Amino acid sequence: MTAKIIKSKPFVEEIRAEIEKEIENLRTKNLPPKLSVVLVGEDPGSVWYAESKAKLGQKIGVEVEIHRLAEDSPEDDIVSLVEGLNKDSGVHGILVELPLPGSLDKTRVTNAVSPEKDVDGVTATNRGYVLGGQEELALVPATPLACIELIERAGFELKGTRVTLVGRGDTVGRPLAMLLIKRHATLTVCHTRTVDLAAECRRAEILVAAAGFRSLIKKEMVSPGTAVIDVGVNETEDGGFVGDVDFEAVKEVAAAITPVPGGVGSLTTTLLMRNVLKAMQLQGLP
Amino acid sequence: MTAKIIKSKPFVEEIRAEIEKEIENLRTKNLPPKLSVVLVGEDPGSVWYAESKAKLGQKIGVEVEIHRLAEDSPEDDIVSLVEGLNKDSGVHGILVELPLPGSLDKTRVTNAVSPEKDVDGVTATNRGYVLGGQEELALVPATPLACIELIERAGFELKGTRVTLVGRGDTVGRPLAMLLIKRHATLTVCHTRTVDLAAECRRAEILVAAAGFRSLIKKEMVSPGTAVIDVGVNETEDGGFVGDVDFEAVKEVAAAITPVPGGVGSLTTTLLMRNVLKAMQLQGLP
Repeated sequence: MTAKIIKSKPFVEEIRAEIEKEIENLRTKNLPPKLSVVLVGEDPGSVWYAESKAKLGQKIGVEVEIHRLAEDSPEDDIVSLVEGLNKDSGVHGILVELPLPGSLDKTRVTNAVSPEKDVDGVTATNRGYVLGGQEELALVPATPLACIELIERAGFELKGTRVTLVGRGDTVGRPLAMLLIKRHATLTVCHTRTVDLAAECRRAEILVAAAGFRSLIKKEMVSPGTAVIDVGVNETEDGGFVGDVDFEAVKEVAAAITPVPGGVGSLTTTLLMRNVLKAMQLQGLP
Repeated sequence: MTAKIIKSKPFVEEIRAEIEKEIENLRTKNLPPKLSVVLVGEDPGSVWYAESKAKLGQKIGVEVEIHRLAEDSPEDDIVSLVEGLNKDSGVHGILVELPLPGSLDKTRVTNAVSPEKDVDGVTATNRGYVLGGQEELALVPATPLACIELIERAGFELKGTRVTLVGRGDTVGRPLAMLLIKRHATLTVCHTRTVDLAAECRRAEILVAAAGFRSLIKKEMVSPGTAVIDVGVNETEDGGFVGDVDFEAVKEVAAAITPVPGGVGSLTTTLLMRNVLKAMQLQGLP
């Protein structure tokens, strides 16, 4: 049996329809949502991500302003820019494109963003709300949110389900672990030090791969009936992208699988825009 | 074979010796460590905990000042008191005894504490550092720390080890999950919605019970060779305390087991005092 391919496109459209209604409503109240993106240096990935946010913003009615700073900008200048954006009541969301050029203190720069404008969910405060299970107070990072939306909108049950999550990074694995536990999954977290990764993956009813290693999850690691969510984005030699899952082989055995591209990653920019609207709520707007 | 009983007493003594040296050093620099405890109402558990902190403080040289407020104190008064303590450079650690009387907003009161004085590790900021794996920046709550110290000082390896954690509360389970992942455990988190709790427990090389249910972990749920860490503190009819593990039965099968009392709980006050010293470091002292 070949797995059902879970593309995110229909869910992207669903969620956009939900937020476009809200954006229209805010515009009639003279509160056009605005996102400020801080882009330091010329990292091609970061430039591409920033521009794709601007493009989507234009499409759905969120103003996206990109602040481009030179690679060698002093840390204090970046922090000052962020602090100015914090104070600007016309700016509702702020994000600093990562990775930052090498010498900059990522913790200091990201924590300079006011928590209620931190639409990337990278400040200690928002992470703390996620740890505490207080998602209603938090801006949750878009990628873990995208995993949850894909799983739930595709009709998979998390309550009481055995989920194996491969990966424990600070932007996806760790916050996603908290979201999964809150939704009552029985969760196993694996990583590079896990002794028998294949066995842990085979136990999973839902397997989430968020390790950042191309073809880490092979056919023999997946049981029939498992739903496989691939969060990986790994560049190939020809400039394309593949996930953490050996897609062609695993789709022969899994019950369902998300593609890369066209899966988790394609949902994130839309969920980032939804975070701008949530940020406005947290700021008491309208 | 009967399990090795892992009492915390020798580790309590080890850690006290470590911190007493540091306290002496601080006193010679005219920086006597000081902890302020805010105690609202007359909850007997809270009164007992506050007094046991004062007692230990007196023994090892940390000044513990208890601020007693009436049960019906307005929330604003409590927050004002905390804000005053934040500003007082002679106070290095602040904690608000929980639970607070019913009508008070726990999130608001606990987050009023300045993160670098939050020795209970309950502010969103400290929780966020724990989520992000940035323990060096964090004040980590004493109970999850006590589990880690007990496991490591008793000589058990966490790296690559299959750990099953039963419980996902915001003060123990969730932060402890992050600490275990950081120490390279392959971690499974179980809770009330887990379908086959016995099977998940039997898989564990180390089993941590932090659910808050008396006798939840029974003999048939534990495999020979497993080390069992009991975080539960459940009151009995006669006013005593028992853990989450059916101690008498489980000790017949486990390789090692921590008692209640005399296990995890007996380490926490000492680790709280260590947090006062870490708080001073975070404040740039000496």
